[in-house]
Amino acid sequence: MSGVKLLGVSGSPFSRRIEWALKIKGVEYELIEEDLQNKSTLLLESNPIHKKIPVLLHNGKPVVESLVIIEYIDEAFEGPSILPKDPYDRAIARFWAKFIDDKCLPAAWKALWSKGEEKDKEEAYEVFKILDNELKDKKFFGGDNIGFVDIVANFIGFWVGIVEEATGVVLVTSEIFPHLCEWRDEYLNCNQVKENMPHREMLLGYFKARAEAEGY
Amino acid sequence: MSGVKLLGVSGSPFSRRIEWALKIKGVEYELIEEDLQNKSTLLLESNPIHKKIPVLLHNGKPVVESLVIIEYIDEAFEGPSILPKDPYDRAIARFWAKFIDDKCLPAAWKALWSKGEEKDKEEAYEVFKILDNELKDKKFFGGDNIGFVDIVANFIGFWVGIVEEATGVVLVTSEIFPHLCEWRDEYLNCNQVKENMPHREMLLGYFKARAEAEGY
Repeated sequence: MSGVKLLGVSGSPFSRRIEWALKIKGVEYELIEEDLQNKSTLLLESNPIHKKIPVLLHNGKPVVESLVIIEYIDEAFEGPSILPKDPYDRAIARFWAKFIDDKCLPAAWKALWSKGEEKDKEEAYEVFKILDNELKDKKFFGGDNIGFVDIVANFIGFWVGIVEEATGVVLVTSEIFPHLCEWRDEYLNCNQVKENMPHREMLLGYFKARAEAEGY
Repeated sequence: MSGVKLLGVSGSPFSRRIEWALKIKGVEYELIEEDLQNKSTLLLESNPIHKKIPVLLHNGKPVVESLVIIEYIDEAFEGPSILPKDPYDRAIARFWAKFIDDKCLPAAWKALWSKGEEKDKEEAYEVFKILDNELKDKKFFGGDNIGFVDIVANFIGFWVGIVEEATGVVLVTSEIFPHLCEWRDEYLNCNQVKENMPHREMLLGYFKARAEAEGY
């Protein structure tokens, strides 16, 4: 055994990022599924500051924050590189990863649960337009192949469409975001993605129940 | 010439992080002082998404976001390491840098301009207590020597005391945060810090004028 455990939630995009990174490196791991309503002592002790998943335990030592964990995996294990090798390309990848986490995800979440209020969608349109523009000459954020930023963008590639279906709030259309939609199509057709996402129907059921409870 | 330009503001902690990192590496650079009320075309073109300083231009290619820039400098130039070498230590350093940027700086800023409202200080007390605890067995965040996290923490080490003096809102005391205060004393006595901070009196004057304008 590699001595690697992941405290995570299989339906979480943040947790899936880590599973994906571990698979790229060929690292065997044990997923310890957390109940977020009743967090384990191991989770609370391993991430006492944020008390959040995912937590990677490597020989018992915890690493937290999904972007930090991915970089750790890239540096601590042999195997194909996740981040680019060139310092400038690495900086660009880190910039986009941060942009997705800090700007895109909060804006997308707000828009998707906006009950169609246009003003709640404005920021999402703005940041998705920036992503769309970045993808205009590229198949993936990483170029011809999936890379660090594509892994980080898994919520946009996979989850957004499911929440759209559950809430009926449509955000990403090919009229407004043609390049982002092309990227999403490529993404969802890619074996690496298919192997690293939760069951669509399971997630859809979860979000439909949530949407119903919130009056959608 | 090294082909390195920094679009920055000499009184900004974010900009000073970059100058410090460049000095550690022994990289010559040209500081282009920005007027944030009237941003240069070069800044707007180099950082079209955030339109913020600091921006590092290396042979004309822009790198933005201060943590991303520091990692870039560490990887692109020869010289002493800024981040630790060991992958686990690197992950821990990245965790603290993110914690400082995401949690400590917004909380500290809110508390310092709270006009003494205790409820506006609560979050700052909470996050500073976490930093205090982290420093209980260490001289610096980096151990015996200043490292990546200490550079990132420059606002806490240098700016906080100045804003406290300007506003009269005292946040960091040795009764509540003994280890953080010891760290600050060591920090301010360190030559590397002295060489990489703006003039205290200049900053104090700036914040005093601001405090006066805001009715402190």
